[in-house]
Amino acid sequence: MQIYTAPLRDMRFVLDELHGDDGFGDLPDHAEFTPDLTGAILEEAAKLAQGVLLPLNASGDAQGCRLENGAVTTPKGFAQAYRQFAEGGWNALVAPPEWGGQGAPEALGKLVEEMICAANISFSLYPGLTSGAIAALSTYGDEALKAAYLPKLVSGEWAGTMCLTEAHCGTDLGLLRTKAQAVGNGTYRISGAKIFISAGEHDFTSNIIHLVLARLPDAPAGVKGISLFLVPKFLPDDAGNPGAANGVACTGIEHKMGISASATCQMQFDNATGWLVGEANKGLEAMFTMMNAERVGVGIQGLGIGEAAYQSAVWYAKDRLQGRALSGAKYPERAADPIIVHPDVRRMLMTMRANNEGCRALAGWVARALDAEKHAPAPETRQRAADFVALMTPVVKSLFTDLGFETASLAVQVHGGHGYIRETGVEQYLRDARISMIYEGTNGIQALDLVGRKLGAHMGRYLRSFFHPVSAFIEAEAGNDALAPFVAGLKRAFEALQGSTALVAQRGLKDPEEAGAAASDYLRQLGLTAIAFCYAKAARIALRELAAGTPEADFHTAKLATARFFFDRILPQTAALYLAIKAGKGSMMALEEAMF
Amino acid sequence: MQIYTAPLRDMRFVLDELHGDDGFGDLPDHAEFTPDLTGAILEEAAKLAQGVLLPLNASGDAQGCRLENGAVTTPKGFAQAYRQFAEGGWNALVAPPEWGGQGAPEALGKLVEEMICAANISFSLYPGLTSGAIAALSTYGDEALKAAYLPKLVSGEWAGTMCLTEAHCGTDLGLLRTKAQAVGNGTYRISGAKIFISAGEHDFTSNIIHLVLARLPDAPAGVKGISLFLVPKFLPDDAGNPGAANGVACTGIEHKMGISASATCQMQFDNATGWLVGEANKGLEAMFTMMNAERVGVGIQGLGIGEAAYQSAVWYAKDRLQGRALSGAKYPERAADPIIVHPDVRRMLMTMRANNEGCRALAGWVARALDAEKHAPAPETRQRAADFVALMTPVVKSLFTDLGFETASLAVQVHGGHGYIRETGVEQYLRDARISMIYEGTNGIQALDLVGRKLGAHMGRYLRSFFHPVSAFIEAEAGNDALAPFVAGLKRAFEALQGSTALVAQRGLKDPEEAGAAASDYLRQLGLTAIAFCYAKAARIALRELAAGTPEADFHTAKLATARFFFDRILPQTAALYLAIKAGKGSMMALEEAMF
Repeated sequence: MQIYTAPLRDMRFVLDELHGDDGFGDLPDHAEFTPDLTGAILEEAAKLAQGVLLPLNASGDAQGCRLENGAVTTPKGFAQAYRQFAEGGWNALVAPPEWGGQGAPEALGKLVEEMICAANISFSLYPGLTSGAIAALSTYGDEALKAAYLPKLVSGEWAGTMCLTEAHCGTDLGLLRTKAQAVGNGTYRISGAKIFISAGEHDFTSNIIHLVLARLPDAPAGVKGISLFLVPKFLPDDAGNPGAANGVACTGIEHKMGISASATCQMQFDNATGWLVGEANKGLEAMFTMMNAERVGVGIQGLGIGEAAYQSAVWYAKDRLQGRALSGAKYPERAADPIIVHPDVRRMLMTMRANNEGCRALAGWVARALDAEKHAPAPETRQRAADFVALMTPVVKSLFTDLGFETASLAVQVHGGHGYIRETGVEQYLRDARISMIYEGTNGIQALDLVGRKLGAHMGRYLRSFFHPVSAFIEAEAGNDALAPFVAGLKRAFEALQGSTALVAQRGLKDPEEAGAAASDYLRQLGLTAIAFCYAKAARIALRELAAGTPEADFHTAKLATARFFFDRILPQTAALYLAIKAGKGSMMALEEAMF
Repeated sequence: MQIYTAPLRDMRFVLDELHGDDGFGDLPDHAEFTPDLTGAILEEAAKLAQGVLLPLNASGDAQGCRLENGAVTTPKGFAQAYRQFAEGGWNALVAPPEWGGQGAPEALGKLVEEMICAANISFSLYPGLTSGAIAALSTYGDEALKAAYLPKLVSGEWAGTMCLTEAHCGTDLGLLRTKAQAVGNGTYRISGAKIFISAGEHDFTSNIIHLVLARLPDAPAGVKGISLFLVPKFLPDDAGNPGAANGVACTGIEHKMGISASATCQMQFDNATGWLVGEANKGLEAMFTMMNAERVGVGIQGLGIGEAAYQSAVWYAKDRLQGRALSGAKYPERAADPIIVHPDVRRMLMTMRANNEGCRALAGWVARALDAEKHAPAPETRQRAADFVALMTPVVKSLFTDLGFETASLAVQVHGGHGYIRETGVEQYLRDARISMIYEGTNGIQALDLVGRKLGAHMGRYLRSFFHPVSAFIEAEAGNDALAPFVAGLKRAFEALQGSTALVAQRGLKDPEEAGAAASDYLRQLGLTAIAFCYAKAARIALRELAAGTPEADFHTAKLATARFFFDRILPQTAALYLAIKAGKGSMMALEEAMF
């Protein structure tokens, strides 16, 4: 059974309590978003997620999308749910107020995203891609383009896409072949074929605005010759409404392992009319604006699915009677105890829980940096926030999706044989979660981004945005006896991370393959250490609240236990990762290609 | 693309070279199975797997099974392939000669199983279940039952099943409700409903022989009141041919995440005629005879899928051009280098390879023990072999299926977005692999079996069958300089394992929940250490062969590199597992049920 109730208390803990001391401050631009207001918004989002989107999740998976004569029909109820979503203003939540957005903090927006993803990951992709298009257009589009498209994208009346991948090029966009030719009137003719275009075609909106990477005739080879174009499905008429059909067609949809209710389209552009977004041959930069925003969002997908999978597993573990507690029957009046009494089931549930709460806490920190990067009054705060976002974007994308998949797989395991049956619903989480490790840059590419572009940048400045708060915390809490096990564990993990960092930096400087060989393990080590830091902070609050006799003793007791479990059972992985990194590239690169 | 070529050279390495010094000896009963003969059998099996079963794997997944009027239609080509399989004598390979079997060693049989599983895991389940039925019947059946059923099961003319699970009881068989009533003429009437019955109904054979757990009227409650019955789909007539239909019906088939071509049936028994197998109320013991044989087989499923997934990923990594080697273009004449040049892709391929070759090596050792347990002339050798099998059965089942799933997931990742598309074929491996962690006792149950039943048995005697050879090896090779890194790594891992073992034993004695809390981590730690031992032995051979100027330098160079990769990059996990086990049950069991 697919169960989901938005974890509002934990969300408010992350939003209002956990990160107040992170130095990003309370932002004047967001002064109106008081805890009262954000709390109310979270509650409304929870209603939408639970009441509208969750009930469509399993049926959407079973039905999938249909392509007929170039038109995609989404599963029953999806288009109507999207109208509710757009009319509720959810599309506009964090969008810029000058284009009709509500300008809410990302720290709030990411929590709402988590709920949408938990309830229905396939659905979440449609507005998710629109958000990316809004980000690129509002940063790089000229005023005319912005005025023509942003209001309708922000309101959700129109939807957006990102058209990057071609059959022969995904990661290596330098190979792309789609062509653009200037017409002379400020427009271009775009021709080429794209694949894996999420929401490339659907029945949600009256127009779809494609942001397409293509090459101009005189463009340099490789990634320096890529430009970004806006290509609407229907060309706006003089009144700005969808007019003549453009040369864009959906020629196929993919049959996939999961996210079946998300239309993954093959798109054909035949002399389609487009407009240049940003400068010629600078398309990759604009694309990365979309991409980076999307990457944090994809990480949130992993978290969302992880939370839904966890809740479904908890429900089952309390419901399913099988065997007796090793410490003696807990429910002697029943035929057997619920399986939640068994340590190995606990191990799985606590791992899932610790993954989810840990990712949520780290996401909350990164989201605050996303806000501070744009809205902090002091330039040095904006810089520090931007550094932190740059560092953590690949970590959030990779680690959260890896953990989301692991969590979904544990949910299947808790269900036993019933977890493998489609109608139970939980195997869908595993299938749906698997794509998040791949798209918007595979997790391996994220790791290369981290070690190749982020670690060394500005003499390690990005890294300091994370290392400084951690070492300050360890120093400040050195005398806190109640917190001592957390501080000691964090210190150990942090020292190992510093060790790995030095290795990657030294060896990678001499030999980039050494950095590449360490990348994925290093990303996980850094990410788990970041989560450990969040848990140590959470434990500090919980200990303080419990000592003060909080009326919310259950919440803080559980938080403390979950934090302890993370330190006991998950954080030790970082010791193994350090050892693996130490081993270097030797045995990884030893085999000649022909020997495989 | 689904690629598979049986790794015959590595199989022969495991069968003929790696384990000769394990003390299980060359068995007189198997003297006729010379390397020449077993090599020829492996080649024939490879032809069947590659030529007949592999081509049906993807189409079988797409078509699935169909139930109409109680009859199951398997996917196109499956029934014909089964006839080829049975006519080729593959069903009879390791079966007892007195019932028409060829009496081949399990050490050979498990390699053939690996190929069948690699090529088509759904197909493998049909003869796989028959093997379990043969094992139970030949051990516990009376002579009349054996004579009536074994020849036709061994030849493959009829098929078998294991009917254990009911909707409300899987792991906890004590709860089962299916009833048996003696008629008085030596037969019984069986009534009840079973679920998740693999191969419960199909179009392969003219009869299906169900082995059914049920309760007699006067049976004690719980697992001590379960008896095993043989219930044929058609009652044999006087000539021994399928006669009158019995009261058995397939009332539904499951729609599953994977293994779609395997019919997973809901079975209804209505006053079906059955015969008692073994003693009344001793059914669980007979069932475990089937189950233990099946468990090693399920581990082999993980290995088989892992090998197929690896080969598919290697093919793609050589074919797909994307980016340039970090050390400079490897193929400047092409648009880009194949992705196999990238360290992170290497990391994934080497992990998969190291998992597979490691599991194959350990499986070869366990299979030799399966043979020695029955056929070694000396009783003490039989005992030691039986001890080793008892210890390693849960390890092979759990670790191999965990690693098979991880390997399949890596294969998807190597394929990037294309890996998520159904027609590429590789996501099927992930879906198919997931069930092996669940059925025949979930991997968590295996871990409890290991720490609860196996570790402490006979004052640790089972464990000594593994610890003794490892410590003898470490001692014997202490002066082997070339092997020193392997000996050192093995020693470190082995000491950590001894540390964990002592913790589990001490704490578990006082508090069974402590053993339960450690179980899954301990199983993985033990299994990875066992694989490390196999790799150290393999490295010893490879170093010797290379020093002697072997004509097979490529094979031994690759083996050495793979062994090094395992020690460098995978074995360090055991350090983390030891730390996790040390933490004990505290945080795992801390949360009250209501707090979840």
